Amino acid sequence: MPTYKLTYFNFMGLAEPIRLILKYMGQEFEDVRIERSDWPQVKEAMPFGKVPVLEIDGKKIHQSTAICRYLGKQAGIAGKNDKESLEIDMIVDTFQDFRMEIVKLMQEQDPEAKEKKKETLIKETVPYYLAKFDEVIKNNGGHLVNGSLSWGDIYIISLTDSMTGILKTDIVTNYPNIQELKKKVFSIPKIKAWVDKRPKTDF
Amino acid sequence: MPTYKLTYFNFMGLAEPIRLILKYMGQEFEDVRIERSDWPQVKEAMPFGKVPVLEIDGKKIHQSTAICRYLGKQAGIAGKNDKESLEIDMIVDTFQDFRMEIVKLMQEQDPEAKEKKKETLIKETVPYYLAKFDEVIKNNGGHLVNGSLSWGDIYIISLTDSMTGILKTDIVTNYPNIQELKKKVFSIPKIKAWVDKRPKTDF
Repeated sequence: MPTYKLTYFNFMGLAEPIRLILKYMGQEFEDVRIERSDWPQVKEAMPFGKVPVLEIDGKKIHQSTAICRYLGKQAGIAGKNDKESLEIDMIVDTFQDFRMEIVKLMQEQDPEAKEKKKETLIKETVPYYLAKFDEVIKNNGGHLVNGSLSWGDIYIISLTDSMTGILKTDIVTNYPNIQELKKKVFSIPKIKAWVDKRPKTDF
Repeated sequence: MPTYKLTYFNFMGLAEPIRLILKYMGQEFEDVRIERSDWPQVKEAMPFGKVPVLEIDGKKIHQSTAICRYLGKQAGIAGKNDKESLEIDMIVDTFQDFRMEIVKLMQEQDPEAKEKKKETLIKETVPYYLAKFDEVIKNNGGHLVNGSLSWGDIYIISLTDSMTGILKTDIVTNYPNIQELKKKVFSIPKIKAWVDKRPKTDF
């Protein structure tokens, strides 16, 4: 059996979908959560100075969506054919565009500009994207693609959860199909077992 | 035969790798290049208000990397196994991180801050990423993965070309392995034929 070691900070963020997929696969892994003070040293050892990084038998792999797609293939939840895989990829990358808007907010240094950006984000950006994601889920039998679980479902559900923590407001509350998918993902027994006992962090 | 229609602006940018892969496949397509003045109306008709969008028999697909990965699979240049596909995905997504730094520069409104950001980008960000990409290519037999052409090669070569136009400085000049890969990609007969006759734009 290969050994898995995941390095990230002590929060959910971009590592949590990887943790959830590994748990879904029944794959044990070393869940390394570094302190901010250790980051400069850890950063040096990472392929492009970023985390999450997953080591499989010591070989470092990086980029959260690339990792999740790869694990998704191993787990048989990466689409039944090229077209389904494409559908997953399209939504996950669109979700990244959405996530970048939140990253930009977090990087804003000026408090006044930040407050203004946060308002635009919550009033315009979040509804724009989430209404469309909700529609996609509605049109695909309660999942991103073809009525069955994919790594894309796990990815976007986990990240909306983190975003809710970052923005301190439940962003999915108006989107019944996203909420329903969230329930489905979090009630998968191996995922539920992890969520019940995982370190509690705000995002 | 399915029909292909690609919608983007009249420049290379995120559409050009798609154009190159379609040409590599020998696949004819309608190359729609919209004017800035038509954008508000076109934007409305696009799945998430963005381009490039490729329509295959009228079905709209979006997100440049998702499209290229899908076409790459059809063309047999998406890795020989899951590990090779992962390697391509990792580098392409890292390339997106790099590209986002240039997008941030372009979005900067303040001229003084913009000049400063451009200097940091050219002196620090570009060498950081390109030296690593150059190393990856060197260690993989002159390609991103396993010594053979992939959609990832075409993606990063096409985009570094656009970036050179945006930054008005040849960013790959110090990176012999990237330059060598560029020569290889642009000397593939079907790609060369397109590059020789494509509309000339700055980026």
